[in-house]
Amino acid sequence: MKEYKVAVVGMGAVGTEMVKILEKSRVPVSELVPLVRSRDGKVIEFRGKSYVVKKVSPGVFQGVDLVLMAAGGEAAQQLAPLARQEGAVVIDNSSAFRMDPEVPLVIPEVNPEAARNHRGLIANPNCSTTQMLVPLKPLHDLFKIKRIVVSTYQAVSGTGREAIEELQNQSKAYLEGQEIEVNVYPHQIAFNVLPHIDVFLDNGYTKEEMKMVNETRKIFEDDQILVSPTAARVPVLNCHSEAINIETERALPEIEEIKNILATAPGVKVIDDVQDKLYPLAVNCSGTDDVFVGRLRKDFTVSNGLNMWVVADNLRKGAALNAVQIAELLVEKGWLERK
Amino acid sequence: MKEYKVAVVGMGAVGTEMVKILEKSRVPVSELVPLVRSRDGKVIEFRGKSYVVKKVSPGVFQGVDLVLMAAGGEAAQQLAPLARQEGAVVIDNSSAFRMDPEVPLVIPEVNPEAARNHRGLIANPNCSTTQMLVPLKPLHDLFKIKRIVVSTYQAVSGTGREAIEELQNQSKAYLEGQEIEVNVYPHQIAFNVLPHIDVFLDNGYTKEEMKMVNETRKIFEDDQILVSPTAARVPVLNCHSEAINIETERALPEIEEIKNILATAPGVKVIDDVQDKLYPLAVNCSGTDDVFVGRLRKDFTVSNGLNMWVVADNLRKGAALNAVQIAELLVEKGWLERK
Repeated sequence: MKEYKVAVVGMGAVGTEMVKILEKSRVPVSELVPLVRSRDGKVIEFRGKSYVVKKVSPGVFQGVDLVLMAAGGEAAQQLAPLARQEGAVVIDNSSAFRMDPEVPLVIPEVNPEAARNHRGLIANPNCSTTQMLVPLKPLHDLFKIKRIVVSTYQAVSGTGREAIEELQNQSKAYLEGQEIEVNVYPHQIAFNVLPHIDVFLDNGYTKEEMKMVNETRKIFEDDQILVSPTAARVPVLNCHSEAINIETERALPEIEEIKNILATAPGVKVIDDVQDKLYPLAVNCSGTDDVFVGRLRKDFTVSNGLNMWVVADNLRKGAALNAVQIAELLVEKGWLERK
Repeated sequence: MKEYKVAVVGMGAVGTEMVKILEKSRVPVSELVPLVRSRDGKVIEFRGKSYVVKKVSPGVFQGVDLVLMAAGGEAAQQLAPLARQEGAVVIDNSSAFRMDPEVPLVIPEVNPEAARNHRGLIANPNCSTTQMLVPLKPLHDLFKIKRIVVSTYQAVSGTGREAIEELQNQSKAYLEGQEIEVNVYPHQIAFNVLPHIDVFLDNGYTKEEMKMVNETRKIFEDDQILVSPTAARVPVLNCHSEAINIETERALPEIEEIKNILATAPGVKVIDDVQDKLYPLAVNCSGTDDVFVGRLRKDFTVSNGLNMWVVADNLRKGAALNAVQIAELLVEKGWLERK
């Protein structure tokens, strides 16, 4: 079987997770090239071999087949062209290329075919969008979703390791009656909710919110679908929750039938037994691969409406796992050939 | 000036707040009667006098003009009739009587006239409903709200003191690597989000969610207004946040004009300067009286849509303050006469 030389760029929260997930994936790896832009020298274990984390330098992508990037938008804009020049295929986790019409934006369970004609670069969608669209895809196919109103309850891990530490430090300081230091977010995140993720745009929405609007249209290949989002950060370490309200064009069946549809959809797991107080919870979700759906109930305020609660590991399905799943898709379909 | 003998029933989180707010209110109090159903004996200071907290006992409401109740629904159902028999007017914070057609459900800034013809009992609305309707009232009057989609981010203080302690204890245990004890909520609340407040009903919604549906209709005196709610508990000590989406019948003006309308509405304060990262925050809201509104932005997915972020102190405007404001309204309008 053909094996691939795989580089992972960025050893933050997402990059580290990528290596962990890649290790257990179906991607045959001849050699791992772990890269950072600063603080090199760390040794990581991967499938029984040790690799030293190196700094990105000229020629580093020579002979590399696949690059998984989790180093932010600026690094992606600089490094993706270099990697492509060397013939590598890049899967980038940043928002830099997501809306580029020449770059496929892929969730393997939702729009795998979009990856087929890549030109050496595929974008990984925003975490909030991915976990929203995995369970909405089967409903969109069957009932055509017209409009989504979504409120997010996002964990700090999406911001990175320093945010996880900030939430822990602030919580500790508060409980011990010490002064709270604010560094990562514009305001205290411990015991608070921030209705502010990424920068504000002229229309009053944040960039995070507009990602959910625009990426949904691109991934569903549906310019008509409407998304009205509010993105908020909550004092949760990992795993995003979302309250999702949808309105469909075609009549929705009974809730039991909707549960059946979702239960058989790829990447979706239904946890919905409210009498036993079972619904998806952020604290139970770390380290899992599925998107969890619960609190399914008709929205009686429109003809065809549905409310649901959706939780997923934002570092995994929302970032690292989805990127590795794209890599598996490329390998299995034979779409990873060097061009 | 006429003075009133005022009883406060319940010395939990809300009852204690009621006494504090009553002390600074415009209600002339000749004598305070602080009551509990267990653990009496505590001495509280009120306007320079000391009062011993007593157990509720037969005849305790004799000569009492006004009773502020914050002892839960069961206690209210038992005690309100006794107090009314003695000629007192009862303002009850529980949900026991809210949907009773003979009992006014009052937010003084929203529907003060509803209090006029009370029969000795007035209900205080649910915290989530109150903070939603105070800013929506001027918009409903001008543009007629047809539909509301709301997601709540509710603090633990609404559950009571034991929930505040549980969040603190669980947070501490987590940070120290200790086992987390779960007593108050069905699941861990520290570093988590629970899409579950109050009990589940047959239609898949919780009682908390249906309060927002039904109380909105009663308070706005509008059987047509539609509310599609998701109520979630977040690890915040005090102050609820809400992501509110509305759709109006009449065209909405520009955002600046909407801000002006809200800024002049009673009980509303606009905090909305996103370029300076200013928006309402739960941690800044404890101890305040207003309902804070920000993140105002058009919802472009419907003809006349608006998104906003609303925060208020759920123990104060959501409970104790609103009850005392009802008392002030009764005093000032002369509606507190013994019947």
